[in-house]
Formats: sequence, C-alpha cells, structure tokens
Amino acid sequence: MKTLRIIPLGGLGEIGKNCTVLEYGENILVIDAGLMFPEDDMLGVDFVIPDFRYLLEHKERIRGIILTHGHEDHIGALPYLLKEISAPVYATPLTRGLVEGKLRSHGLLHQATLYTIVPGQEVKLGPFSIVPFHVNHSIPDSVGLAIRTPLGLIVHTGDFKIDHTPIEGKTTDLGALARLANEGVIILLADSTNAESPGYTASESELIEAFQRVFAKAQGRIIVATFASLLSRIQLVIETAAQFGRRVAIAGRSMEDNIRIAEELGYIHFPPNTRIPLGQISKLPDDQICVLATGSQGEPTAALARMASGKFRHLKIKEGDTVVLSSKAIPGNETQIYRNIDNLFRQGANVVYGEQAGLHVSGHAAQEELKLMLNLLRPLYFVPLHGAYRMLQTHARLAYELGFPKEDVFVLDNGDCLELNTQGARRGESVPVQNVFVDGSLVGDVGDTILRDRMALSRDGFVIARVTLEPKTGQLRETPEIISHGFIYVPESGDILQSAESAIVDIVERYSAQDCDTEELSKQIKQRLEELFYDETRRRPVIIPLVSTTT
Amino acid sequence: MKTLRIIPLGGLGEIGKNCTVLEYGENILVIDAGLMFPEDDMLGVDFVIPDFRYLLEHKERIRGIILTHGHEDHIGALPYLLKEISAPVYATPLTRGLVEGKLRSHGLLHQATLYTIVPGQEVKLGPFSIVPFHVNHSIPDSVGLAIRTPLGLIVHTGDFKIDHTPIEGKTTDLGALARLANEGVIILLADSTNAESPGYTASESELIEAFQRVFAKAQGRIIVATFASLLSRIQLVIETAAQFGRRVAIAGRSMEDNIRIAEELGYIHFPPNTRIPLGQISKLPDDQICVLATGSQGEPTAALARMASGKFRHLKIKEGDTVVLSSKAIPGNETQIYRNIDNLFRQGANVVYGEQAGLHVSGHAAQEELKLMLNLLRPLYFVPLHGAYRMLQTHARLAYELGFPKEDVFVLDNGDCLELNTQGARRGESVPVQNVFVDGSLVGDVGDTILRDRMALSRDGFVIARVTLEPKTGQLRETPEIISHGFIYVPESGDILQSAESAIVDIVERYSAQDCDTEELSKQIKQRLEELFYDETRRRPVIIPLVSTTT
Repeated sequence: MKTLRIIPLGGLGEIGKNCTVLEYGENILVIDAGLMFPEDDMLGVDFVIPDFRYLLEHKERIRGIILTHGHEDHIGALPYLLKEISAPVYATPLTRGLVEGKLRSHGLLHQATLYTIVPGQEVKLGPFSIVPFHVNHSIPDSVGLAIRTPLGLIVHTGDFKIDHTPIEGKTTDLGALARLANEGVIILLADSTNAESPGYTASESELIEAFQRVFAKAQGRIIVATFASLLSRIQLVIETAAQFGRRVAIAGRSMEDNIRIAEELGYIHFPPNTRIPLGQISKLPDDQICVLATGSQGEPTAALARMASGKFRHLKIKEGDTVVLSSKAIPGNETQIYRNIDNLFRQGANVVYGEQAGLHVSGHAAQEELKLMLNLLRPLYFVPLHGAYRMLQTHARLAYELGFPKEDVFVLDNGDCLELNTQGARRGESVPVQNVFVDGSLVGDVGDTILRDRMALSRDGFVIARVTLEPKTGQLRETPEIISHGFIYVPESGDILQSAESAIVDIVERYSAQDCDTEELSKQIKQRLEELFYDETRRRPVIIPLVSTTT
Repeated sequence: MKTLRIIPLGGLGEIGKNCTVLEYGENILVIDAGLMFPEDDMLGVDFVIPDFRYLLEHKERIRGIILTHGHEDHIGALPYLLKEISAPVYATPLTRGLVEGKLRSHGLLHQATLYTIVPGQEVKLGPFSIVPFHVNHSIPDSVGLAIRTPLGLIVHTGDFKIDHTPIEGKTTDLGALARLANEGVIILLADSTNAESPGYTASESELIEAFQRVFAKAQGRIIVATFASLLSRIQLVIETAAQFGRRVAIAGRSMEDNIRIAEELGYIHFPPNTRIPLGQISKLPDDQICVLATGSQGEPTAALARMASGKFRHLKIKEGDTVVLSSKAIPGNETQIYRNIDNLFRQGANVVYGEQAGLHVSGHAAQEELKLMLNLLRPLYFVPLHGAYRMLQTHARLAYELGFPKEDVFVLDNGDCLELNTQGARRGESVPVQNVFVDGSLVGDVGDTILRDRMALSRDGFVIARVTLEPKTGQLRETPEIISHGFIYVPESGDILQSAESAIVDIVERYSAQDCDTEELSKQIKQRLEELFYDETRRRPVIIPLVSTTT
C-alpha cells in the first residue's frame, strides 16, 4: 500500500524559510526553497536556509522544484539547493525572472533547468499532476497549486489573500477553487501568516486614496520606502507620482534589480517621462520628485537607513521632505525601523508611518479569508502552513471553529511528517532538521558552539592571560601579560587588571614547586581569573590562558 | 535678570531614563531619576542611566529630587545618583516604599533622606514651590507637579492618562488642573509616550469583563503575566480569581517584592483565603489555580520565559493551561515575547495575547487626552516630554493643530536646554550628555570602544595567532598556533586554519633576514590573516597576533 508523505522542511517562523516536500513512492516534489532572516540570537549569521539533508539523501527521487512566487522566503535558498542537486525548476514568468537573477549572481544559471508555468496549465512530475491557480499576494504572478496524486487531490495555497480589487487586475481564482472543491480535496495546506488578524485583509486598492492624500499634501520631496518585491505597491506609487507631476527615482539596488526585471516582463510600467536617474533629482524642483527607496525594515545598509543617518550620497534629508513607510514591521525589526524614523524626524522630515497612516496592507489572508478558503475547499485533512507556531495553532483553531475535528488538523513542526494512505492520514516519522546558517561564504559550519561563543563574547568580551615560564624552575620568566577586548575600559581598569596579574603570579609561585603541568596550570589560571573578574565586575569574559615554557 | 532653565537629562527613548532638571539661579530641582533598558546594539549592557555629570558638577545647588511615580524609568537610577550626592528625595507613599526597597538593596537606605508627599500639599524647595496633583497611570500614587517659580507656574504631568473609571478609584485631578489653568501656566511639560495613538486610551475598568470572559472559559490553570509594577492590573486579577473560586500564587521575585510593599501600604488587597504559596499549587485542582507571573516582556530569566522553556521548577505548562499576557510589547522585545508564546503553545497551553485579546490597556494618554491637557492648561510654552523623538514630534504636531505657534513649542533632545526669563522662552546652551551604561557592577566604563569590540566579536569571533621566534635567527621556533572562538567550526575548517599557518610561516620566513621588529611582524600577520579569512569565509574575526622571542 503506497503512502504519500508531506514534510515541511522549513516554514516555521515569523517569516519562515519555506520548503515543503511531497513524497509518493520513489518520487519527491519540492514546493519552494526559501530563506529566513536571522533572529536576534543568531549572531553574525547572514541568513538561514532549510536543512536539505533529506533531499540530498534522496536526490534521485526529486522530480522537480515548483515555486509559488518570487519572495525571498520562497526562492532565496534555491541557489544553495541547486548547488547540490540538479532538479528542474518550475515557476511563473516573474518568479522565473527573479530566480534567474539570483542564479546568475551565484554562477548557477547555465547549469539550471528552468520551466515557465502558467495558471491552468498542467505540469506532470512523476505521479504528481500539478495545476497552478492564480492567487493575490504582495507580488504579481503568485500561484497556489492543485496537486493530483494517486491518493487524491492536494491543494497548497502558497502565500495568498483574497483581494476583490487588486491593483494588478486578477483576483484569486475562486472559480478554480470551487471546481477543486467539487472534485474533493483530501488535504489543504494553507498560508497562516496572518492567522492572528481578525476580519479581512484590506484590498491593495484602498491605498490609492491614502497615497493621493499624501501626495496632495506634500510640498517638498516625497520618499516612499517599501519592500523591493512589492511590485504592485511600486506601480501604485509610480502612477500616483505621475498623476501629481512628480518624476520617480529608485534608491537601492534590490529595488532597481526587481523593477528592471519586472519592467522587462511587463509587470511594471512607467508612464512616459516619469522615470529619472537618482543622480539627477537635484536638477528638479522638490515638488517634482518622488524617490522609491529600499530599507522599510530598517536594514542598516539599505537606502532609507543611509538617508536617516545622513550617509546617502544622492539625497540629504531636509526640512520639507515627506518620508512614507509603506510597510509593516516584521517582528524583530522594530528597533532599527524606529531608529530610522527618529533620525528622519530629527533631520526635519515629516515621516508618515505605522498602521494609522493607512499606507500599507498585508499580502496575506486574515481570519475571515482563511475561513472562506477552508469552507470553500472543505478538505478531509488540514495542514496550516507558513508562520510561527502560534500562527499555525491559531489557524488550526479557526478550523476547529468551522467544525473540523481535531484529529483531522495537523500542526506540523519543521521536519514533521504527515502520512496519507487509503486508510487516512496520520503523523509519520519525522525527518531530522536544524537551522542551516549561512555566514559569509560558508554554509552550515556555524552551529550551537559558535553561536554560544559569540553570545558570550558579545556580552563581556575576552581576556588573554599570557604566561611564560622558565623551563627548569617553572617560575615566571616575565610579568604575565593581560590582553582584553570588549571586557573593560582598560585606561580606567588599572586595579582590576593589576589584581589579575598578581593572582597569576600567586598561582604560578604556588605551582612552581611541582612538576610543570601547563595544562593544569592553565585551568587554575582560568578559574581564578573567572572568579576574580566576576567578583570585581560581575562580568564573565571568555578567558584564554596561554601558558608556555621557553624550552 | 534671572533665568529659569529646563534640561531633560534623559527621557528620550521608547521607554526613556527620565530625569528633568529645573534650575533657577543657584537652585536645582531634579524631577525623577529613571533608568532605561538597553537597546539591541548595547551589547552586554544591563541598563542605561542618565548622565548625571551636570548634577555632580553643581551638587551644592540641588535642593531636592522629586519623584512622580514608582516605575523603573522614573526611579531606577536613583541609587546611582544618591551614591554621588546627598539631596533629599520626595515621593508619594507607594513610590517611597518602592524606592526604599531599591535603596536598601544598594545599601543606601540609612544615608538617604526621604520625605513623603501627598497631592495638594505644598513642598518648598528653594525658590520652587511644588504642589503634586493626582494623575492616573499604570501604578497607583502617580502625580503630576505644579511648580511655582519666580517666573511663573510650570506644570509637569508625569506619566498620565485620563481614566474616568480607574480601578484604583481616583481620577486624574481635572479640578486641580482647571485651577492651575486659571492661574496661568507658563510652561507645560507633558508625557508623550502614547502621542502616536489616536483617540482615547481605554479605561482600566474595560478589562474587568475581558478578564471575566477568560476566567469563565478556562478549564485548567490560569497564568497571567503582566508588569510587576502594574498594581491595579494585579488587583484586578486577584479579584477576578477570588470571584471564580481560584487562589492566587505569585511567580517572580520582582512581583513578590512589589506586591509585598503594596500590600503593606494598602495598595493591594487579597480577599480572605485567596493567596497561596507557589510551592503549594500542586495540591489544588487545576481549576482553582491562578498564577501571577513576571516576564510579560519576554525577559529570559523571568518566570514566564522559564515556564515557556520548561525550566520553571514550580510549574510545568501542560495541556489545558491558559496563559494570559496582559501587556504590550515594548519595541525591541517582540522576538523574545513571541518566542515564549510559541513555546507555550508548543507545550499545549492556550495563550491569550495581543491587542485582539483586549486584556491590556495603556497607562499613557493618547492623542485626544493630550489635546485635552493642552487645551485645559493653555500654557504659553509647551515641551513634549518622555518618549522617542518621533513621539515628541508627533506630540508637538498635536499642539500645532490646536493653534500653538511653532516657536512656542520646544522639542528637546537629551541635554538640550530651554531658558525662560521675563522676555520669554528660547533655547539655551545644551549640556553634554551621553548614555551611561551599567554593566555588571561597573558604571560608565563601557563606551563606544568596548561596544564596537563586542559588536565585532558577536559577528565573527576572534582568532589568536601565536608565533614564537628564535631570538638570534628570527626564525620560527615551532609551528604557529591558531586559537579561535566564535569564528569558524574548527573540526571542519582544516584547510582555512592550515592556510593561515602557512601564511604566517611565509611572512616570518620573508621577515627573518631583517631585524626582528615584532611589532611590525605582528601588524603584517594581522593584515595577512584578515585578508585570508575574508577571502576564504567573508568573515572578519578580530585578529590577535602574539609574537614572542625566546630571549
């Protein structure tokens, strides 16, 4: 009796590294391969990718990788996966365009096999027959997937909302969903990112008036910061600017790249005479300028942070500027976002931000939309996907409210497995997964030990105690040398470092009578200095004793 | 012509280290002496206190320190100030009780001079005559201050909201404010913490029904996490628990301490047979238990975080538990708060949290209340106080909307000075201030250098390169030793550390011909290793070359 297995390899998190595995017999279908930005305690880490070990162990089974849309948390880890395996990749035109840019910069484009998919057209991959359907999300060309398997129909929503008046024109394909419902859905996997939000997510169109109010009021330059991938928002800003006689410049490389790709593919359109290079804005009157900028999450190297700190070459913030943050804080980014806002205010800008401003709507379905999806499809089993654990649980509770029995709803942790056969669905054996950290050019070498070391160093720095002994007598050859970094302000710490020296002299003197076991001596010095520094400062620097004999 | 100077020494921040100086001639009045919790990039710092240098330089002028209420951001730095100066401290009974506890733990209680103040009773300090008036805030016994000076009446609101149905009984004293208005207010200094929130802040009483709904629904234990200082909330939980036949245990030392002090002073009341020691909750049925816990901001060592991680001895979270977060995230704490919520869900608890739950109201006035205060008092000049820079600016804009001329509103940075004389108010000379960091038992030694070191170490760790040379030939005496912490996973980094060794051998060989300048050699080794590690890993560890000769 054949079994279908569903394993989310990533996906858990405020914004997770989404990657879901469907396996039937010797056939694996991979849905998305995203990255996650590091949490507070992942010190020095650039980003986190899913643990692909299970896929690498079963390379030969992978029939294809299908991408639901072009956001980093769905495509960002693809280069790391394609470095190890050579499966074909399936994506809608815009997603494909963004992936190509990404693979090119990793030097992987020539060896990748990419196929374009479009809503309504079937893709056959081994036992899986996949038909994408259009969904609304904060990037065009997003799809959900109807996946027909030998055990029945599985629906994966991708990231979605139900926007009846989207800027990009097409609504989530409710007709397709209704047809799928009539066919009978065994398992629904659905986006949980906004499961904590009651009601409906507002339409992107509701922003038209809000932006017009801002543009009508602003006397000076307008700078709009938003996500580089939020192309419908970018289009809205371009159109509003054109309407108010402003020309549009782009600040920030990721936004430039995305807009270039989207423009080539027809997803972004500049009215004639609207675009202007950033370097030329100083030639125009302030009230004819609109700048689209990266950095709405407070990223310290993005355009907006550099403007806020006065370090952006092309644009110095001044009295009269209006800065709009058309975005929402991803939890964990609040401090850096607010710091930018404070600094922009300090330089005289009028900053328009936050929920009250009404200049952002989410790209994810809120509770009533999630209920609609559940009630429309009425699957036999339900797996809340994409989101932090509390969001999955909240999504599950919505299903219970709609009458889904608890035993038919599966809240899966990363690596957990749902098994389906003709008898029904149940939890299967988990696959071991961990966070795989990308730090600099190395992937996966940073683990708990290094993070623990970095955490200790970040708190109290380190102290090297360098001790040289006479080989014959075991006595000190010279005064012990103490070197510290990040521990204490040395010019004013005379006493404490002096005491450390004396303590070492003490230990060595008591020790020199015996055999010169430098390892044991090092241990004693380390222990004594730990005690001494903690007593004197209540700090716990990392202590590195370096004992050598001059044999 | 005498001048009155107003200088906020702290106060700027999401939750600032509030401390405001009023100076007239040779007389200084200090209002509050609070601390601030460190921001993300203040690595290893325990908390931040105001820069008291200006006060220390003018010790003899200080007539007194008056405290508006007992929150940490208003009283937390008092011990650090009283270590250096010996001015009398004036506080309402509860604030005084909390201050006494704090001074006792710093061994300062015996040497401090404390006076109790009550609303309506005048305190004369040099040229200042101060009459406190009652305000609503999230801790009882909060006051604003009417300060009569030779140049006129100044009003300082303290932290406040206007709650017409407060749990503690007394409303903000609008009558007193009206009388002050009639007398004529020169300068109003007002709380800006909630200046970004439109409308009115809801009354504490609105929580009664919300808590009753939670208690009516919960089958198992109820754990309520809130601020240890939010005594009216704590009282509300105690009463609701009693009403539903539950007994109340306290988890967390700061909450125990605060409740003890507040109970002694009559600000907290347990109905008979309501309180139970935490160690005895296992003897009661689950539906008779309510636990009040610290840790609503996700503090890793507080009770709630330890429950979430399964490390709280007295209470293991289980299926059926209801955990309530009766609090709002202070920006910057979101990650740790959400991590706790996720972990509590994971252990089977039903977690009730967030704005939707309706189980928290702010203690600060929102925009309509701020406008009411401005319109009621109609001061000549207005200084928005307490809050991040954007909040002060937003508060200032509210004043502009009410018709205040721009030149009569002063948004002051920490250390900025407002000067008032009979000609009017204008900006005076600023006082230099910086963040003073408390780290362990040392105050003020951690500065930019140490923080920069800690930041570098937190990202990429460090590498020690230990090189011993023959004194005569300048050749290597043994293979260079490489020690790293937090940089790279050593067992799998063979090649990189090997290359580093070879590079050092190379440098020394090229070098040995010449005079043995160990300093120059160290510099070259450092530079070469920085390049090599960056090329190989894109990481930038701190490099410590240790070159010695065995003379």
